[in-house]
Amino acid sequence: MGGDSGPDVVLRGANIARERFPDTSFLVFGDSDRIEAVLSRLPKLRDRVEVRHTETIVSNDTKPSAALRSGRKSSMWRAIEAVKEGEADLVVSAGNTGALMAIAKFVLRTPRGVDRPAIVTYFPTLHGETVMLDLGANIECDSENLVQFAVMGAVFARTALAIEQPSVGVLNVGAEELKGNEVVRSAAARLREIEGPFRFHGFVEGNDILDGTVDVVVTDGFTGNVALKTAEGTSKLYAAFLRETFKSSLGARLGYLLARPALNRLRRRLDPRRYNGAVFVGLNGIVVKSHGGTDGFGFGNAIGVGIDMAASGFMEKIRHELERLRPAADEPPQAVNL
Amino acid sequence: MGGDSGPDVVLRGANIARERFPDTSFLVFGDSDRIEAVLSRLPKLRDRVEVRHTETIVSNDTKPSAALRSGRKSSMWRAIEAVKEGEADLVVSAGNTGALMAIAKFVLRTPRGVDRPAIVTYFPTLHGETVMLDLGANIECDSENLVQFAVMGAVFARTALAIEQPSVGVLNVGAEELKGNEVVRSAAARLREIEGPFRFHGFVEGNDILDGTVDVVVTDGFTGNVALKTAEGTSKLYAAFLRETFKSSLGARLGYLLARPALNRLRRRLDPRRYNGAVFVGLNGIVVKSHGGTDGFGFGNAIGVGIDMAASGFMEKIRHELERLRPAADEPPQAVNL
Repeated sequence: MGGDSGPDVVLRGANIARERFPDTSFLVFGDSDRIEAVLSRLPKLRDRVEVRHTETIVSNDTKPSAALRSGRKSSMWRAIEAVKEGEADLVVSAGNTGALMAIAKFVLRTPRGVDRPAIVTYFPTLHGETVMLDLGANIECDSENLVQFAVMGAVFARTALAIEQPSVGVLNVGAEELKGNEVVRSAAARLREIEGPFRFHGFVEGNDILDGTVDVVVTDGFTGNVALKTAEGTSKLYAAFLRETFKSSLGARLGYLLARPALNRLRRRLDPRRYNGAVFVGLNGIVVKSHGGTDGFGFGNAIGVGIDMAASGFMEKIRHELERLRPAADEPPQAVNL
Repeated sequence: MGGDSGPDVVLRGANIARERFPDTSFLVFGDSDRIEAVLSRLPKLRDRVEVRHTETIVSNDTKPSAALRSGRKSSMWRAIEAVKEGEADLVVSAGNTGALMAIAKFVLRTPRGVDRPAIVTYFPTLHGETVMLDLGANIECDSENLVQFAVMGAVFARTALAIEQPSVGVLNVGAEELKGNEVVRSAAARLREIEGPFRFHGFVEGNDILDGTVDVVVTDGFTGNVALKTAEGTSKLYAAFLRETFKSSLGARLGYLLARPALNRLRRRLDPRRYNGAVFVGLNGIVVKSHGGTDGFGFGNAIGVGIDMAASGFMEKIRHELERLRPAADEPPQAVNL
């Protein structure tokens, strides 16, 4: 029921995912009348969908705490519960991000070795694609959180981008070891020491994110959220300036017409719908958050991200890597033979 | 002596500023042989320059603490000292940012009402131009720092952009009052109450920065530095993708040729050299930091920023606004008549 257009976009997305992943079936939670009305126009999808009616929804302006208190019968809660019960391999929602994270944490819990889940995504850069986390789940982080994000981000890069040994950088205000605050410095010191599923690059700066200097950028949720939205805003500014420029003279208009096929290829390459689907990592289950304003094509891609992760055993890989990380002090005490 | 090309760029910049500001004269600190060699090729500038020879410089890899300990005879230190002694109205440097800030704080001190200086600049956005601070002087800030940044940023916007009553936003991960950490929430609460030289807009997000949602974006030096460099990196990515696109087919090449005059106008409008010159605000003196990699045109603009500030009485305006802000507890005790 989430997102700006509710079941319509969600089901159109499922219909696209159905073609790409013919073995997939869908549990759809929400107002069954509205859902059935859309499904009646999508006959091929109809056979692959089981509708579960719910009376309530979590709206976009519901606070996470309120969703936790009174959202147990909502479509969002019940969809997450289906993952916990093993009825679904993953859940995808275009709804309220804060509520989705709060309910997912409460229902699914974090696996051993994860203190806090994080939000991760990837986007196109000058050199391929780059993964970044956390994008807003954790406003304040300690260095141990960042170390865990590095491990989870590296496993995500391996799964989503097929990079065997991803390079990891910690976002900072300079590349030198002494730059930044205590949190990033101790996280970097720890990452230099441990053997994780990555090569640790060191610190990176804001301009490195879209340069693609590293495969995985690790940061707290405040900085990550601001950086991602700043990049989105800058792209929007550039696109607006270009549109204006191509209308500014007759030569520019003609030039645009000639270059249009090439410019359209660029637009498709950078299409945010292609990169739709942020993943909540660090939970006992796969939770994918679609952009609320996307369309069926975008929602279908968010479903695809989740299916790729489930099919590649993402959860097991994360657990395995976190297991390797745990300090010896965490181990059960050994019997000592004197 | 600072920047990638030393006195050459600095003096070419001074030569450009000389034409724009015919009443200006220059004190130039550094290796007099190298400076005189450049000046001999700039006869009109020669008459307006007094060269002060120094034996040492602060290099780009000198740590701020080392510059403070042993930089007293450097060109950087002596140029700042000229402001303190009233010999110069402002100082402009393309050198080591950290050292420049450390020496400027030590030599010039902060005026009453400022706990910490900040680095401020402005750049083109979808709706005009926007000022942002802090860009990296203060890795960690409390809410009082952010409130002072808001006041100084607003006075800067009035001076540099001629906006009488600038709108101010605090950078956060969401627009709602409850979002973010304690620091941004209490800064916003305070800014809602006080009467400053601005309209307080509330919270803004990363995408608002280049949207130009507000005239002044206030944030801590960590987030501000990451956001500014992320925007720079995104612009660079876009420019690279466009170059590639215009070479990708014959039609695109022809289209580029036709649109080139318009595209060049856009390039000039967004030329980072036009926006060169970050200002250290919150010191007893005007200190302008030029980008190290700029050319004479860019350095000339940095000088222009400083001259505009000095000519408009920036320091007095800042002091006046900070005076108004000071809580009553700070006032000298009054004699009480019983």
